[in-house]
Amino acid sequence: MQFQLNDELIQQIETFIEQKNDKELQLVLEEVHPADIAEIISELDLDEATYIIKLLDSVKTAEALMELEEGVRERILENLSAKEIAEELEEMDTDDAADIIAELSEERQQSVIAEILDEEHADNIVELLRFAEDSAGGLMAKELVKVNENWSVTGCMAEMRAQAEDVTRVHSIYVVDDKNKLKGRLSLKDLITAPSNAHIQDIYIPKVDYVNVHTPAEEVAQIMQKYDLEAIPVVDEMNRLVGRITIDDIVDFIKDEAEKDYQMAAGISEDVEADDSIWRLTRARLPWLVLALFGGFVSVTVLGTFEGAMEKYGELFFFVPLIAAMAGNVGVQSSAIVLQGLANNSLRGTLVKRLLKEVGLSLFNGVVLAIILCLGAYYVLGFPMIFGLTVGISLISVIIIASLIGTFVPIILDKQGIDPAMATGPFITTSNDIFGILIYFSIAKLIFGF
Amino acid sequence: MQFQLNDELIQQIETFIEQKNDKELQLVLEEVHPADIAEIISELDLDEATYIIKLLDSVKTAEALMELEEGVRERILENLSAKEIAEELEEMDTDDAADIIAELSEERQQSVIAEILDEEHADNIVELLRFAEDSAGGLMAKELVKVNENWSVTGCMAEMRAQAEDVTRVHSIYVVDDKNKLKGRLSLKDLITAPSNAHIQDIYIPKVDYVNVHTPAEEVAQIMQKYDLEAIPVVDEMNRLVGRITIDDIVDFIKDEAEKDYQMAAGISEDVEADDSIWRLTRARLPWLVLALFGGFVSVTVLGTFEGAMEKYGELFFFVPLIAAMAGNVGVQSSAIVLQGLANNSLRGTLVKRLLKEVGLSLFNGVVLAIILCLGAYYVLGFPMIFGLTVGISLISVIIIASLIGTFVPIILDKQGIDPAMATGPFITTSNDIFGILIYFSIAKLIFGF
Repeated sequence: MQFQLNDELIQQIETFIEQKNDKELQLVLEEVHPADIAEIISELDLDEATYIIKLLDSVKTAEALMELEEGVRERILENLSAKEIAEELEEMDTDDAADIIAELSEERQQSVIAEILDEEHADNIVELLRFAEDSAGGLMAKELVKVNENWSVTGCMAEMRAQAEDVTRVHSIYVVDDKNKLKGRLSLKDLITAPSNAHIQDIYIPKVDYVNVHTPAEEVAQIMQKYDLEAIPVVDEMNRLVGRITIDDIVDFIKDEAEKDYQMAAGISEDVEADDSIWRLTRARLPWLVLALFGGFVSVTVLGTFEGAMEKYGELFFFVPLIAAMAGNVGVQSSAIVLQGLANNSLRGTLVKRLLKEVGLSLFNGVVLAIILCLGAYYVLGFPMIFGLTVGISLISVIIIASLIGTFVPIILDKQGIDPAMATGPFITTSNDIFGILIYFSIAKLIFGF
Repeated sequence: MQFQLNDELIQQIETFIEQKNDKELQLVLEEVHPADIAEIISELDLDEATYIIKLLDSVKTAEALMELEEGVRERILENLSAKEIAEELEEMDTDDAADIIAELSEERQQSVIAEILDEEHADNIVELLRFAEDSAGGLMAKELVKVNENWSVTGCMAEMRAQAEDVTRVHSIYVVDDKNKLKGRLSLKDLITAPSNAHIQDIYIPKVDYVNVHTPAEEVAQIMQKYDLEAIPVVDEMNRLVGRITIDDIVDFIKDEAEKDYQMAAGISEDVEADDSIWRLTRARLPWLVLALFGGFVSVTVLGTFEGAMEKYGELFFFVPLIAAMAGNVGVQSSAIVLQGLANNSLRGTLVKRLLKEVGLSLFNGVVLAIILCLGAYYVLGFPMIFGLTVGISLISVIIIASLIGTFVPIILDKQGIDPAMATGPFITTSNDIFGILIYFSIAKLIFGF
């Protein structure tokens, strides 16, 4: 049943566009879901994409525009007049419309808003533009269904039907008092099953989860996930109901956050996709590589100070990449576990307790690995036993220190209000490389006395 | 407004449990949401937790049990009798109940199911247990609201009210024919606004997204995200409506998948949390470290073959960690971008085209980094220019090869049906370390002729 994009369809559409065969185009795209139209548009060149957007009904293209990647959408919008953009925005929910307008230049924003015919819609969008993108205010839509606590069930059914026209999906009906303050909620189910002469204040549920316009998006996502909510009302500083956030926006937010953390851990600092330009990909990747390069300079210097060992114990240098790799891997493991604990708000207990646990864990892992190393170095690689022992003892120390750094740094960054995701990936591998090598040669120096 | 867990509350609860002061306990926990009760339980010891579960009403504890981490839940369930578990399951939706039962030993499953009083509920759970965990059948719940296309609006309102009793949230009303085959859907909104003498077949929407019981969970998540669905009906092989999947389960699925990918990239192969036991954490982390250790043995051997260079060009060895680190970082970056493209189903174009793009990108990045390296090695570290040039040229080659490996390996694994997430983290850094060192010394050998 699922729509499958194929080259044949794309070619067909391209031919129709070339022939300006609007009738066939509309026929082909009639039954296609806006999200799929967005996929088709991503495959077309800019002029073709613009042609489709202008041809199809705004009801359909508005949603397709929302589903497009930001880069593609930006270029298409540049090809549209302020009036054409305004027509698309009229068909969007206020939250989506505000997101799109926010992508335009300030000058363009003015002229597009001026072209929106529905004044209330325009007012709502302007209101939403004031909130920070990563706050509840920035996520919420103005569309919602609300009833006054003093209304009767029959009286509010009519009112509700009118309101529901504007709302794509009715999750909950919010109950407010005469001053628009949030009092509680009511499900459609409750309303259907209530006697028609009842009053709202007799049947509504006074307990309702809500957030403030200034609540950070991350907290909104946590609350909605924890309590399995599909929508949450948003109130202003005076506790007045001003909007609602729906779960589909939170799903997008959760995915984006997870991708951002993943990319950060891989040393990619901007949200990029495989199909982005080389320039954009470079901007996201090169800074981390430069950081690693500078870290490399430090390790060159560290190794240089132990040059004296080269003549008699040159083989020690063969184990440098092994030590560095273990330090890096352990550091990444430790930091990843701490980071996920921080993200899920599930880190309990004191820092000291956590560090002690890491020491226990790495001591155990380190001893196992050191034994494998000793035996491997002696029996397989044929090094004298003293080499295996030296590297093994170093390995245990390096693993303990690396895991402590991996645990400690993200927790400290988080306490300082810095994104702890910074402390994983290249940063942690680079610093652990350096510490690892330093520890290794210091211990070797103690043992061999060079 | 949000519940905040604090030590004071935990202590208070522990004291009440010790005093067996059930009345105060119930009073304290009365207004607390089940998800928060789960948080409280996680802080208590096993006996205390069991005490709370046994004390509170199943309506509340059933949901709290669902919210607990699997490890904690497992231990509590071991403390409950089959009958007590069955009582909890009675209060759960079928999908949750099936998930919990699946965690028990097979023997225990039998005795728990036998204790479930509601026979239909038990039948439904048994049916769900047959499906693979990561399929639509494994995700779906049997609870849904459906109406026959031949019913009248008034006739179905009564029937629907009865059905809705069992369903926590009504998303859509599904329309079926006499053979229970899925025909379409109807929103509560439509039903409210329809004239009461209308028939369902006149007002329902014949277009409805659906999945098959065997559709992989990942595909279900993609469909629901793409089309912003809050629930999707599930049909069997005969197109009969057998269940529905709601967005909250998909939110959990998306989060779990993202965490799994993130941990895999960090060299953690099981789903672990910071608070898991040292033994569990070791099982997740040690295998990757052993892999990295074996990789380290290979790099020791590779370096050993270039021992001849040590006497005259020993400084070359100082740059080994720098080269290895760059190779590792570039490989992780490339593989992360490919992996996300694979996960989002957004990788287009041929493999060759993608590899060519990586070559272009890494050539550019490599040249920039090589220039920094040359200048740094000469002016800052004081190496002869020929050293900087040698390491710089090697760096460019290493970066290109590393990014090709990072791009190529996950795509190939994916094509072979192996989880491409395997190809990131320790695996890619270890193999790129080895290739990096090999390339570096081969080039140095060509230039210096040792």
